[in-house]
Parts: sequence; structure tokens; C-alpha cells
Amino acid sequence: MKDLIEKAEVLVEALPYIKRFANSTIVIKYGGSAMSDPALRASFARDVVLLKFIGLRPVIVHGGGPQIGRTLERLGVQSTFVDGLRVTDDQTMDVVEMVLGGSVNREIVALIQQAGGRSIGLTGSDGDMIRVTRRTSPDRDLGRVGRVRGVDPAPIHAVVEAGYVPVIAPIGVDDDGVTHNVNGDEAAGAVARALGAEKLILLTDVEGVLDGQGALIPQLTVPEARKHIDEGTINGGMIPKIECCISALEAGVGRTHIIDGRIVHAILLEIFTDTGVGTLLGR
Amino acid sequence: MKDLIEKAEVLVEALPYIKRFANSTIVIKYGGSAMSDPALRASFARDVVLLKFIGLRPVIVHGGGPQIGRTLERLGVQSTFVDGLRVTDDQTMDVVEMVLGGSVNREIVALIQQAGGRSIGLTGSDGDMIRVTRRTSPDRDLGRVGRVRGVDPAPIHAVVEAGYVPVIAPIGVDDDGVTHNVNGDEAAGAVARALGAEKLILLTDVEGVLDGQGALIPQLTVPEARKHIDEGTINGGMIPKIECCISALEAGVGRTHIIDGRIVHAILLEIFTDTGVGTLLGR
Amino acid sequence: MKDLIEKAEVLVEALPYIKRFANSTIVIKYGGSAMSDPALRASFARDVVLLKFIGLRPVIVHGGGPQIGRTLERLGVQSTFVDGLRVTDDQTMDVVEMVLGGSVNREIVALIQQAGGRSIGLTGSDGDMIRVTRRTSPDRDLGRVGRVRGVDPAPIHAVVEAGYVPVIAPIGVDDDGVTHNVNGDEAAGAVARALGAEKLILLTDVEGVLDGQGALIPQLTVPEARKHIDEGTINGGMIPKIECCISALEAGVGRTHIIDGRIVHAILLEIFTDTGVGTLLGR
Amino acid sequence: MKDLIEKAEVLVEALPYIKRFANSTIVIKYGGSAMSDPALRASFARDVVLLKFIGLRPVIVHGGGPQIGRTLERLGVQSTFVDGLRVTDDQTMDVVEMVLGGSVNREIVALIQQAGGRSIGLTGSDGDMIRVTRRTSPDRDLGRVGRVRGVDPAPIHAVVEAGYVPVIAPIGVDDDGVTHNVNGDEAAGAVARALGAEKLILLTDVEGVLDGQGALIPQLTVPEARKHIDEGTINGGMIPKIECCISALEAGVGRTHIIDGRIVHAILLEIFTDTGVGTLLGR
Amino acid sequence: MKDLIEKAEVLVEALPYIKRFANSTIVIKYGGSAMSDPALRASFARDVVLLKFIGLRPVIVHGGGPQIGRTLERLGVQSTFVDGLRVTDDQTMDVVEMVLGGSVNREIVALIQQAGGRSIGLTGSDGDMIRVTRRTSPDRDLGRVGRVRGVDPAPIHAVVEAGYVPVIAPIGVDDDGVTHNVNGDEAAGAVARALGAEKLILLTDVEGVLDGQGALIPQLTVPEARKHIDEGTINGGMIPKIECCISALEAGVGRTHIIDGRIVHAILLEIFTDTGVGTLLGR
Amino acid sequence: MKDLIEKAEVLVEALPYIKRFANSTIVIKYGGSAMSDPALRASFARDVVLLKFIGLRPVIVHGGGPQIGRTLERLGVQSTFVDGLRVTDDQTMDVVEMVLGGSVNREIVALIQQAGGRSIGLTGSDGDMIRVTRRTSPDRDLGRVGRVRGVDPAPIHAVVEAGYVPVIAPIGVDDDGVTHNVNGDEAAGAVARALGAEKLILLTDVEGVLDGQGALIPQLTVPEARKHIDEGTINGGMIPKIECCISALEAGVGRTHIIDGRIVHAILLEIFTDTGVGTLLGR
Repeated sequence: MKDLIEKAEVLVEALPYIKRFANSTIVIKYGGSAMSDPALRASFARDVVLLKFIGLRPVIVHGGGPQIGRTLERLGVQSTFVDGLRVTDDQTMDVVEMVLGGSVNREIVALIQQAGGRSIGLTGSDGDMIRVTRRTSPDRDLGRVGRVRGVDPAPIHAVVEAGYVPVIAPIGVDDDGVTHNVNGDEAAGAVARALGAEKLILLTDVEGVLDGQGALIPQLTVPEARKHIDEGTINGGMIPKIECCISALEAGVGRTHIIDGRIVHAILLEIFTDTGVGTLLGR
Repeated sequence: MKDLIEKAEVLVEALPYIKRFANSTIVIKYGGSAMSDPALRASFARDVVLLKFIGLRPVIVHGGGPQIGRTLERLGVQSTFVDGLRVTDDQTMDVVEMVLGGSVNREIVALIQQAGGRSIGLTGSDGDMIRVTRRTSPDRDLGRVGRVRGVDPAPIHAVVEAGYVPVIAPIGVDDDGVTHNVNGDEAAGAVARALGAEKLILLTDVEGVLDGQGALIPQLTVPEARKHIDEGTINGGMIPKIECCISALEAGVGRTHIIDGRIVHAILLEIFTDTGVGTLLGR
Repeated sequence: MKDLIEKAEVLVEALPYIKRFANSTIVIKYGGSAMSDPALRASFARDVVLLKFIGLRPVIVHGGGPQIGRTLERLGVQSTFVDGLRVTDDQTMDVVEMVLGGSVNREIVALIQQAGGRSIGLTGSDGDMIRVTRRTSPDRDLGRVGRVRGVDPAPIHAVVEAGYVPVIAPIGVDDDGVTHNVNGDEAAGAVARALGAEKLILLTDVEGVLDGQGALIPQLTVPEARKHIDEGTINGGMIPKIECCISALEAGVGRTHIIDGRIVHAILLEIFTDTGVGTLLGR
Repeated sequence: MKDLIEKAEVLVEALPYIKRFANSTIVIKYGGSAMSDPALRASFARDVVLLKFIGLRPVIVHGGGPQIGRTLERLGVQSTFVDGLRVTDDQTMDVVEMVLGGSVNREIVALIQQAGGRSIGLTGSDGDMIRVTRRTSPDRDLGRVGRVRGVDPAPIHAVVEAGYVPVIAPIGVDDDGVTHNVNGDEAAGAVARALGAEKLILLTDVEGVLDGQGALIPQLTVPEARKHIDEGTINGGMIPKIECCISALEAGVGRTHIIDGRIVHAILLEIFTDTGVGTLLGR
Repeated sequence: MKDLIEKAEVLVEALPYIKRFANSTIVIKYGGSAMSDPALRASFARDVVLLKFIGLRPVIVHGGGPQIGRTLERLGVQSTFVDGLRVTDDQTMDVVEMVLGGSVNREIVALIQQAGGRSIGLTGSDGDMIRVTRRTSPDRDLGRVGRVRGVDPAPIHAVVEAGYVPVIAPIGVDDDGVTHNVNGDEAAGAVARALGAEKLILLTDVEGVLDGQGALIPQLTVPEARKHIDEGTINGGMIPKIECCISALEAGVGRTHIIDGRIVHAILLEIFTDTGVGTLLGR
Repeated sequence: MKDLIEKAEVLVEALPYIKRFANSTIVIKYGGSAMSDPALRASFARDVVLLKFIGLRPVIVHGGGPQIGRTLERLGVQSTFVDGLRVTDDQTMDVVEMVLGGSVNREIVALIQQAGGRSIGLTGSDGDMIRVTRRTSPDRDLGRVGRVRGVDPAPIHAVVEAGYVPVIAPIGVDDDGVTHNVNGDEAAGAVARALGAEKLILLTDVEGVLDGQGALIPQLTVPEARKHIDEGTINGGMIPKIECCISALEAGVGRTHIIDGRIVHAILLEIFTDTGVGTLLGR
């Protein structure tokens, strides 16, 4: 009985957080180990379903680089990279859409449903939701790689209002209706902006934002983050994620978090504890 | 961190219960030690607020015998009891209404609001909600003591739909609009029936229903309960509570519980564990 | 037949007033003889129910000083007064809440229901509706006496939209959820402001606002009222009521009335005749 | 003041009737002296507007035989009558529609609006609302004279829900969309049936249903009415009106009234007094 | 089959226009040959019904000068004209209302319903919809001839939202509720303004706006139209129609069209082709 | 102009069909040449968008056998077939989901959007929409091949109500949440049943149902179809499609059509002509 009462205390301790985030929209960029490790996958799905049931509105945006790479390899399609971006010809884009929309997206929907939730998968081309312009590079044509211009939240609202957790693949369409590959973090940031989300959470495979000495920075304001970037005291790979957070914050998203997806229940810990598990980037 | 993760696990363990009871109406008869002991009062209030925030619809019905007694005493009003019922003349009824509606009810509303909830108090005469006929006794006139004929759920719906936890004082009105004293358990049962509640929980100052040897009976069907009553193997004081549960079950309430209000978080334990803390009376 | 036709004419004469006030919110401060005299009580209740049925939205706010005094006396609790305000220690406040919420409020609800209306009683602590700060006095601590900071109209709207006449007891809560005694006129004015009421009617035991010669002033603008106050040509006891009207008018209430509650059907006469029965205070 | 208070008493006396008929649909067949006498016209319009404002839903159906006759005469069109029905060739029907839809109907709409109400006129061909089959006579072709088969209440609901008093001209359409002349009483009865009205009131130029001795019968059940008809103790001209009431009653209309439209405020008297001014025909 | 496929192609070609005008309100002034020629009448009705069914919201405003003239003649009522306006005494106005509201309006409603649509007729006095002031002339009293001051769109909205095509007779009411004769084009323009219509179409008996040489001007801006009027290069009879279009455009109507109602399916051609059949007057 | 008027006539001729099918749900099984031939693809998309805009509710269900086959081949995965069903091991199912959900489904969504519509793709696992049991074969394990047990229409309703054309991939989930390959015709039939569709249209690569002599049977009742099957006078490949139609008809679908998808605008011709282009199977 004592044990049970302690468990009840834990529930009661969560109350202030439940109250604070009731009806809040939380956009979660899902990827990395949290997506590849079976235990973390299951923990992620249960966290999402719990959030949904206690009154929050989780929206999942995923990536899928590794899976795309593996399938391209199996099909014998070669890829070139420019500035970290995969040059995406039509043949490659067919595989990108197939993997993101038909494989990664479907697995996440299934994962959430097996954890007891109800979910519907979308890609950014559903309802011409994620609108892009083609990215250009001075050196060479990147092909169908898009930069997000805007997000029409209507398809997401339709899914959320019907009671489902939307899971969104990072594909965009240009003005001619041509699909483009989009960076998952960038898509998540744009979705958060369009929804006026209270929180944007980027799941990563690092502890959070680290300073020059490799120590975790638990909290950062936008000016502080900009200073770190200017002074080069932040790891390069983290910069696009920080930029994505800054642009979400500037568009009205309440708080953004770059957290360690390698920890079980990373999302719950972020939402239901004061310290969180990574870096909070706020205004 | 390990500690935090364990806490997250507790939240996740609650998920199946949260799902099962989403949008369920839970009528709770509040009284006894849970109402007099400060620590239990606070635990009760937090439990109710938590239920509200994770998507259930708690409705509180309270008693107030001891408080009525104390105030009558302070005012020098004598009471007679017939078959355990307080003979209620007009003067006494004035005190009953004043104590139930102006003191006990208000304290519970305040308690819930201090725990972070939003609450509105009602008495059974608001909107002629609890309708009674006068109880009669062969021996002598009981005065304004009522037997519940029916409950109009409209005032409760108005309060619940506006987002408040209703707290209801057990006062009834007869066809002439005259107020009567009503037993709290009986009022709770009638409210549960009128709302088509999923659960009726009676908080008591005993472990639950005990058998002839004083051992807790964790689960009872209606026929079993009737058999116990017929054979006299159940304590007399428990019989009205069991009758109240049976009549609620027969009117469509899903499950009824007679639980030990002396345990902190008794309500949460009842709802979020399989074993519960008392006796489950089901069909 | 001729008699009946004359009655029909009276109904038809009321039409322009019915049209003018259709769907209007009318806040009525109820107290004094209108509350203590049985014939006036019945007339008040029928007036309120009639208003409700012909499409207005009456909202009742009551006082209760005399009843509180009587109960304190019966319980042997002494009261001190500072500047006409009862010093309210915790023990006194318990009695105030009990009498206002459990006795006066309940009687008015019953009265309206016996006249054929449907009514729900509220106190200012329901849903933390009436928010106060503690009044201070240079001389001594007044205890739990509050000054209204604001009113959350949500509980009132919930009750009105469900078709009930709300009856509100003048109790307020501070930021810590502690209840305070509030002046009834002040509460009525604040409720009228929060609801954007078309009319605020204060029922008094005098003819209305009297000038220096004791003659009734049928109509006053805010500047005129201010001039009377400055020149001392208005009775002191009337000044807080006038201030309450002025502050309601400044917050958008359409018209305010200080009327003679000793006249039967005072409210109907105020609303359905051009002359009214007291003083109209407008902008 | 005493006079005013007496007027207030009259309003309060109306309360039980206002309550009883709140939101009730009252179909009124308007015609005869009530339509031709200027004082009665004004009294009718004010009554209708009063009913609307105090929460009832009046629906007006009118006739127009005399006006049609006068216009036909002015245009030099001859009419033949068979069994009291005007033989209606195409030329006559053009005049019928013009007079009913463009003159009588418009005047009633104007009348109600001048009395302070808001009204929209409809004819039975709007939205193919009143559906008829052609009446046949063994002797000769009656032309475009219709018998009502059914009423689609949708156009009436649209008008009522938008807050207007509908005024309906008795014109019907057959399956080919051809308009027909319809008896006004019959149209009113069919409209009352289709709306599930609480009351159907037929305004006539007699006191009500008279017995063999010419004395008013204040109240009649359907079987009694049938007996009177069978025994020939009721005036022949009244029989179709009684049949119309019976068929409305059988289709669920609450009460029907054949009243004396020559009395000012006949409608108010019918609704707001227990005795009424004519004959009540109930089940 | 080939023939059928060609027909399908025609439907598909209409798609961009259907999309562009989905949910658009199109006010059509109906009159002239389109109203007098049987083939054109039928074509008009089918066009209107088609528009309704494919998702547009047609609103019809009609005239009726010739019909009024014929009926006045039959009744032997003489008319005088001042500046092209019929001097309208009370007797004349009775005929105007009878003809417009009871004959012309009813025929159009029947026409649309026979073509498979659902329609409700209104006149500008329904719900005091079309508000006028009396036109004055320096020379002599014009009688009940009105200039439109404004249109209350509520009756039209009620009819449209219930799924009917409104057909509106050009009658107006002044502040005293007195009905007046109104020019049909002017009424149509005012209705289009009040509804914020996307299109106003005036059906005429000429090709459109013709230039000094009698050649059709397919498209005109407001400044161009003004220049033509100033330079006198436009036929005088067309000027009021152009003024009506200009005032609609200035009040927010999207586009206005003066088209040749003598062509079958003139409305469809205007809406579903790029060239249209007359003159487009835009901003 | 004459040419334009003829086009307008075509639109008007479509009116009776537009009326008949307003708000009707039309489930279309899309596949075969209509999906592989570029001209037919474009014609299909325009037809669907046209249906949507003129007020019907098209719902698309697609197949994808050939595309699955090609991708399996490219990936070097071998397939075995039992009774025409692809034995579907886990590796194969991954490819099935990837191709159906990520490639075929996305192309159809893009096609519809490029034709001017708004569309959202779903697979049968979204919201656990298409529920299956595993098909068994006496000979060998078929792997993840499902037989449809039921369809939850909620995800489809969410998409349709938000204004999008749903495009559904034939994937099902069993009670354990495991995805299965489902026959496209069968999925379309089950979707039509769940939606209570007015029409189910199966696009094929043949003229329709042919009789023993190879002649098209334009119309068939269920008993006739059963007789043909029993007597073996219908081609074997057509039998499952006929069974699918019969089961849809028995569940309340209005009419079913097996039509020739090789004809441009086959869908429009089916809906907007009386003869149609294939076989109508009705009750």
C-alpha cells in the first residue's frame, strides 16, 4: 500500500505541469536514437500517448536520413552531398518520398497506435501543407531540396480535432506542386510556428547544447545563443537546430528545447520536471 | 536522473487507467475523516483536481452531520433522533441549510480551488435539483427529512460544461418547494444515477465492506451483497451504503466503490490501480 | 369582458418596454424591507420571474447585514464596527459565510422558485468569481473585509445560459483564496460592470436620492451627482450608493437606479414605466 | 402610483400563461372583421408582436376572399361558385395570387412591422411549401382549387429562426408546380400540423361554436363535436372549421380555438385568460 | 461515345470557373426580354439553378415596369411620368405592390422551382429590408417613389442559409413603414453592396455598353466609364445602370456586368467564359 | 457565340445529375490503365476535382500491384503467388507499404492537387481504419495478406469534412496492430459500405461485365449476377469484382459500377449520362 501511495504522490506532483500545459500544442521533432533503438521507440510512443490523454496536443514531425540512405543503397542509387545536403534528382526524390511517407511515417503511426493512441500520418504534400522554394547553391544544382516558405495548418487541425496524433513527414511542395526534400528540424520549426505551438522539442543524440568546454548549457536566451554562435563556442552541427529554435521563438512559439533523445521518457521529463533533460532556448 | 525516470514510469503506468476513464463521470461522496483530517483534506482536493485535469469529470456530494450537530449545540437547539435520523423541525432545518450550504459546501469549494481547481458549489435546492418526498416514521413525525425521488441533472451539467467541479450539498425540495434534509450517501447515489456516472465512490471511515470475520471483501456482486445482508453477515451500518450502491448499479451506474477515506490518495488509488482500496460492488 | 380587455391593454402598453429591454442584463441589488417584508418579498420574486420570462436577464446580488448580526448575537460573538464596517475576524467570517451563503442566498433562491422561476445561488467564492484585496484602515485591522478588484463573469454566464436566475452572495476571495466580507452594493456594481449590464438597480428603504430639502430627485447626471456630493446637499448614507452607480456608469453600464424597495412591484414599475420609482442616475 | 401598481399586478397575473406558452408555436388564422376593421387590425398586430416578444412563436395564415372578389370585379372577371368554392380558371388564379401574395399578405406584414415587430411574408408556393392535389367536383371542373396534401415546414422554420413572424398566404402547388387556390382555414390547420403547434386559433366573425339554441359552447371534445355535427345541432358554416380543428388535434396540435375576432385583443384574451373568448376544441 | 466525351470535356473546362466562384454571391438583376420571352425565361431559370447546385449563391432582384403598366391600364388607372419615373399615388402603389409582389415575383419563384431549384420570394418590405427616402423632384411630387438608403441583408441571409434562391421585388420602406416603388437596377446594386457580392449582373435588352460608334465596349474601368459619361459618348439610357455599377464597385462588389439578356444562357456565358457577353465594369 | 451557347447547354444538361448526386459520397477504386496512362491520369484527376467542386464527395481507393512488383524486382525480392495472392512475408510487406503509402498514394494526391483540388492521403492503418483478419490458405501460409473485417470511417470523415479528397491505400491492420496487404477492390467495397456511399465505381481495363458471347452487359441485378456466376457465363477475373459489388449493395450502397477506365472521363460519363460506360450492378 505504501508503494501505491508513493505512486499516487508522483501523479499528484505532475499536476502543476498538467495544468500548465493543458490544451497546449507541443511539436516534437522525432529522430536519431529515439527512433532507432527499440526501447527508446516504445518509451517515446508511450510518452506521446500519455501527453495526448492528459490533455496536451502532441504533433510529431520526423526525419529519416539514415533510412533513405539505406534504401538508396539497396536500389543502387548513388548520392552526392553539397554542404551536408543530399543532391536530390528525380529518381532520388522518388525514393525519399517512398521511404519517408511509406516507411518511416507509417512505422511511427503504428508505434503510437500500438501504445494505445490514435494516429494519422501526413506528409507535407497532403493538402499542399508544407510550401517550399527550391534551395540553391552557388556551386551546383541541389535538385529537389526545399526551403520552407510556410505551412498551412489546416490538414493538421483536421487530424487533431478528430482526436488523432498527427505524424508528419518532412516533404514540401513548390508552387508548381513539385515535391521537395526538406530538413526535418526545419519542418518541425515551421509546423510549430504555423500552429502557434507552446513548445517545440527537438530530440537529438547529444546531451543538449554544449559550451566550449563540452559542458551542457541548461538554459539559453536568444541573445546568448547568438553570442555563442558568433564566438564559435558552440559545435557546428548544433547551429542549424539553434537557428530553427530562434526562428520558432521569434514567430511566437513559447519555448523550444533541444534534448537528449537517448534518455528513456526524455519528453515526459522535459515537460514534467523543472530541470528538463537538455537545453531550454527561450526568449 | 534515475529517480526522475522512475517517476516518469509511474506516469506511464497510469496511462491505461487514464484512457479507460477519459470523459467518465465519477461521483464521489465526501465525508468522514477525509473531510475532518487536514492532511486527508488536502490529499482529497489534489486528487479531485488531478482527475479533472486528466480528463475525468469528478462530481462531489458531501454530508455534514457532525458540523450540523456542533452548530445546533452552539445555538442551544436540541435534537431527537428516530432510527438514526435527526428529527428536523423548521428551526433545525434552518441550521442544516446554513451549515451545509454556507459552511461545509463553501469549505470544499475553497479546498478544491486552493489545490488549483475551479469549483462551484450547489445545493440540492438550486434549480429544484434534488426532489424529495417527506420520509415518514410510524412512531413520530420526522419533520423535514426527505427521501430522494429524483435528480434533475441540468444544474450539474451547466457547471461541468463551464469547466467547474460541482460540489453538492444534500438538501432536497418537495413539490411545494420546501427544503428537506437528505442523507448524503443517498443523494450521491441519486446524483450518480441521474448523470449516468461510470463510477460512484463512497468515502468511509472503515476499510470497506467486511465479512462476518471482519475481513475485507474486495469485490461483491449484487446477488452476493444481497445474500450477505439476508444472512446478517455484514455490519448494520454498512447496509444503507450497500443499498445505495445497488440502486445506483441497477440504474446504470457502471461500478460502485465503498472505500477507506482514511488512506491518503484513496480516490487515486481506487481509480489508478487494479486492486483499489476497499470494496468494489459491481453487477 | 370589458375588464379583461382593459387587462389586455395593460399588457400591450408594456410592449415598448419589453422590446427595449429584450435580452438586457439587469443587475438588482436586493435588500432592506424588500427582503424582510413578506408581501414585498413575494412581489419581488414575481417581478424577477416575470422579467426572466419576457426575455430580460435579471441577476440578483444580495446583502445580509441584519441577518448576520442576529446570528452572531445568537452565537454570542461580539462585533466592533470601524467607519460602519464590521471588523471581521475568522470566527465572524465563518458566520458571515454561513449566513450569506447558507441562509440568505438559499431563501432568495427558494423565493424565486416558489414564484415559478428557476434559480441557482452562487457566492463570490464560486469559481473565484469576486476577487478582492483586503480593505485597510489607519486605525485598526478590519480583518477579512474586502474591496472588490474585479469579477470573473464566467460562473454567472454558465448559470444564465442554462436558463437560471443567478442569486449572488457578496463574498470575495483574495489572491490566496481567503474569503472576505464584501459590501452588497459594491458587489452588485462590480457584477454589473463585469456583465456589461444595461441596468443596475439598487433597492433601498428610502424614496430615492433626496435633495437638501428632502425632495426626491427623479433624475441625476454624473456631474450633477458629484456636485451634490461636493456641496453636501445629499444625505451621507446615500453617497456610497451613488459612488457605486457612478463607477458602474463609467464602466459602461447603461443606466443605474436607486429605487424605493418599499413599494410593491418596485422593479416592474422602474422598468415598465417612464417615470420609475426613485432616482435614475445616468451619464 | 396606485394605478401603476395595479398595472404591474396585471403583468404579474399574466406570468403563469407566459410560462405555460414560452417557446410555443401558435398558428393564427387571420381574417374577417379582424382584418377589415382598422381598430381590430391594429389590436391584432400589437397582440402578435407582444406574443413574439414575450417568447411565443406566432405564425399567421390569412385568407382574402373579399379582397379577391373586389379585384376580380374591378378587372371585370366573372366568378362562378360550386359548393361555396370559387371556380378558378387561369385568369382568376392570376388575380388570386396577385391579391393574396401582393396585397393582403403585404398589408399584414406592414401592419406587424408598424406595431414594432419584424415580419416576412410567404406564400404557400415559396419553397413548394403547401402541397396540394386538385379538388374535384362531380358536377364541374373547379379549376385551380387545391386540397392540402402536406406542408414542408422548412421555409417557415427559416423565417422563425431568423427572428421574424411569418405571414403565409393560402396558395398551394401541385406536383407539376402549378399554383392552386386553397382555403385559409385548411391551410392554417395544415401549417399547425406540420409545425407541431401547441395552439391553432381561428379568428371568426361569430362568438364561437354555438349550440342549437344559439348559445356559445365554451369547450368541446372531439367526440362531442362529432356528435353535434351528426345531430345537426351546429351551424353548417362552422362545420369545416371544426373539421379543420379535429384534423389538427389528431395530428398532434395541442389545442384549437374558434374565437370571436370582433373583440379587441381577442388573441391575448384567448391566451392569457382561463375562459378565453370563444370555443376551445381539445382532445 | 465520342460525342459524350466531348460533353465531358465541356464540363471539365468549366472547372476553373466553378472553383473561382465557389460560394460566391452573384446578384442578378432580372428583367427585359429575358423575363418576357418564354425560351429565355426557361434558360434563365436553368442557369440560376445550375449556379446554385454547383456551389454559387445566386440572388435575384427583378423589375416589372411593363407588367405594372398593363395592370394599371386594365384597372383604368392613369399614370404620369416625370423624368422617366412613374408618379406613384397610393392607388398606383397598391397596384405596384400587387403586381411586383403577387405576380412577377411569384412567377420567377415558380420558374426557378420548375427548373428544379428551391426558391423563396421576398419583397423589400419583408423585415423592412430595403430602406428608402422619398425621391423629390423640383417640378412636382413624385408620390411614393423611393431612393434606396440601405439594405438589411438579414432576410436574404435567412433564405440563402436555408438553401433557397431568394427572389426580391424592388419595393422599399421609409422610416414610417410606408412602402415605395424603387428602381430595379438600383435595388439590385444596393442588395449586392449589402451582401458584399462578388458579382452584380444586370440583364438588359442591349448588347452591353456601346461606344459613340455603336460598338460594344467589352471592358471598362470606373475612370473610363466616367470619362465616357462626361464626354457624352455613351447612350443616356445606359448611364443609370453604369452609375449603379460604379456605386456597387465602390462599396466592395468585385465585378459588375451589363450583359445582353436576349442571348440564351447569358448568365452562364458571363460566368463560365473569359470573354462574357456584354460589358465588364471593374475597378 | 453559337459554340459557347452549345457549351452552356452541355452544362445545363448536367443539372439533373448534379442535383441527383449533390452531397453524395462516391467511392472510386482507381487502378489499371487509368493510373498508368498519363492522359487518362490527368482526365481522372480533373474528373475527381470537378465532382468535388459541384458538390459530390469523391473518395479514392487505389491499388498498386504492378508498382509493388517493379520495386520488389529492383530490390531483388522474390515473390510467390498462391491463388493469385502474393505471399507476403515481412520484407515484402515493408516494400508493399513503402510503395502503396509512399509512392502510389502520394502520386494520386499530387495528381489531384495539380488538377486544382485539395487532397490528403491515408493508408488503412491510419487510425486503425481498415481492420483485417489474416487470410488463410489450406496449402501454405500467405503471410501478411488480410481479409477486411470492417472500416472505421472516422479518419475519412475528418478529411472530407475539412474539405479534402481522401485517397486511401489498401493496407489493413489486425487486432495486434500488424499491417497486412489488402486487395484494392475489396478495400474500396468496404470503404463504400462503411461510408454508406451512394455509389461504388470500380475502374477496370475491360469494357465492363461481358456475357458468354463477349458482349457488354449494361445492367445487372444481384440475382442475375449470381446466376451468371453459377452458370459460368462470366469471365473468372471479373467474379471478385462482382462479389465486391454485391456485398456493397447488400450493405446499403446505392449503386455499383464496373466501368472501363480506358475511356477518358470515364467517371464523368458514368455519373452524368444515363447509359454510363460499363456495367451497372444494382439491387
